[in-house]
Amino acid sequence: MRRDDDVHALVETVLGDGPGLRKVRAVARLISLVESDSPALREVARALAGRAGRAHIVGLTGSPGVGKSTSTSALVRALRAAGKTVGVLAVDPSSPFSGGALLGDRVRMSEHATDPGVIIRSMASRGHLGGLAAAAPQALRVLDAAGCDVILVETVGVGQSEVEVAGLADTSLVLLAPGMGDGIQAAKAGILEIGDLFCINKADRDGAATTRRELRAMLSLTERPDGAWKPPIVLTVATAGTGIDEVVARLDEHRAYLESSGQGRRRRLARARREIEAIVLGEVTRRFAVTSHGARLDVLAADVLGGGTDPYTAAEAVLDEIAAAAQADEI
Amino acid sequence: MRRDDDVHALVETVLGDGPGLRKVRAVARLISLVESDSPALREVARALAGRAGRAHIVGLTGSPGVGKSTSTSALVRALRAAGKTVGVLAVDPSSPFSGGALLGDRVRMSEHATDPGVIIRSMASRGHLGGLAAAAPQALRVLDAAGCDVILVETVGVGQSEVEVAGLADTSLVLLAPGMGDGIQAAKAGILEIGDLFCINKADRDGAATTRRELRAMLSLTERPDGAWKPPIVLTVATAGTGIDEVVARLDEHRAYLESSGQGRRRRLARARREIEAIVLGEVTRRFAVTSHGARLDVLAADVLGGGTDPYTAAEAVLDEIAAAAQADEI
Repeated sequence: MRRDDDVHALVETVLGDGPGLRKVRAVARLISLVESDSPALREVARALAGRAGRAHIVGLTGSPGVGKSTSTSALVRALRAAGKTVGVLAVDPSSPFSGGALLGDRVRMSEHATDPGVIIRSMASRGHLGGLAAAAPQALRVLDAAGCDVILVETVGVGQSEVEVAGLADTSLVLLAPGMGDGIQAAKAGILEIGDLFCINKADRDGAATTRRELRAMLSLTERPDGAWKPPIVLTVATAGTGIDEVVARLDEHRAYLESSGQGRRRRLARARREIEAIVLGEVTRRFAVTSHGARLDVLAADVLGGGTDPYTAAEAVLDEIAAAAQADEI
Repeated sequence: MRRDDDVHALVETVLGDGPGLRKVRAVARLISLVESDSPALREVARALAGRAGRAHIVGLTGSPGVGKSTSTSALVRALRAAGKTVGVLAVDPSSPFSGGALLGDRVRMSEHATDPGVIIRSMASRGHLGGLAAAAPQALRVLDAAGCDVILVETVGVGQSEVEVAGLADTSLVLLAPGMGDGIQAAKAGILEIGDLFCINKADRDGAATTRRELRAMLSLTERPDGAWKPPIVLTVATAGTGIDEVVARLDEHRAYLESSGQGRRRRLARARREIEAIVLGEVTRRFAVTSHGARLDVLAADVLGGGTDPYTAAEAVLDEIAAAAQADEI
């Protein structure tokens, strides 16, 4: 669709000084390229090597109904008031729709639409394995290289992959709301382990104190080494902006902790490792699908269905064929 | 932990005639083996080849608060009343906890605990890639081979992977509740595409008719070829059992449609294919991790972090090394 020249021109614009609408458009274009898994993706990644790593990446997770969009918008406002540039990446791991369509939905964010210090992009992952895992880190790198001080990563929709999004972030912000059995749901979903900061939003409703008490009790059960970060709990009313400045302060504290403890570098290393692994697995799948082995897989699947073999024996056959093809330099 | 002999003894018990507590215990033990990714997993899969494929696998998905556990329990009751044996597999893709711990939570299911015609198992997936994808199909195969007429697969917790669970099932049942902005959330998450049957639970609350109208309008936007299945919408009050018999009737109708249209076989073929792929990818990852290349990945990750390379170039290096190792017969 676009030549490499264009990718480089876009990257130059993204790396250019200061915010501006030209930069916002270049970021949008690069993220679209990344999302569509175009060959330009590699070119973008290459051009951005060493140009990212400055932004504070904050993941927002929470059940539908806790006020995620409103909280994101309130955070953007508070961060802007503090003089920071902000990127927002809304990811929907389960949606078949493209980023643009989703973006149209996000009416609450429209107040930031004309502020060149805020870049908002939505992103859907089409495929299953490796989809979000491969594209989202590149999109974050684009926003990072564009000079965003803070990047908020938000999941959209019901089929959200909390843990996956947490894996992309430096700091994981978990949103809850009073009632809804959220406390117990939290324990079940293992989000207690991933949360670096908890917000009980809609805290003007009945039950906020109870939810905080329950959450505190559950967090106290988690064993943490001496000097480890203790996830704070902040009560917010995002629609009124209440508590949002405290959230921003706690995010800054967590970032400082990440730096001083070395935990930040460890997380980023693990992330880079997972990213390479995801690309490798994606490539193995892709190469396999484009060779004659793709059809072979259909035959094996039918054989499993018919009871002639089991999936492990079938997988062994595939692995043998991959090795043979590698030896013959076919893949 | 257990010798192959024991696996075969367990499989024999599972394949034995009629329900019984010995069978229930053997199923539980085999699913634990499958979940712990023990070497016995292959042995189990091999022993069960051709012994499964009779059960109707129904996936239940829905946001927290829609009444998933209550609906599952009501469905079990209705299916038992119709003389069917039932398996329930509760999967939590994001939980680090083991199946046993989760099972203890599921108090609502305790009424079925002493019925040998009901087998309930919970399952957590520890790893990320390939975790649930690899273990859940084997667990379903165990329940299927044990003679369950219907198997309900339910996701637990917030970080649920709707689409992933839908991929395991013959029929996808999507639960909604009035209000909560569920309609819009549904559209966002793409669950309209995966739902074969929709239940609006808690239908005695305000807004059930509105939710049904909205859902109908959205479903009518989806283009379907002539003769294709039109997902019905059933209003239920699971706590009172209202509408549950209609759900059971619709599930039977969908199963009949799957058979007559050939769609059922196509879904099962796609599932077997994905299963083989997941095992292949899991094996590639595992083999890579246990060779010296695992440490190499850490070096490459640090290099990406330092800006010396980008993840795609790093992945290329890994792929070259995999190919070289395959040629040298190291992996």
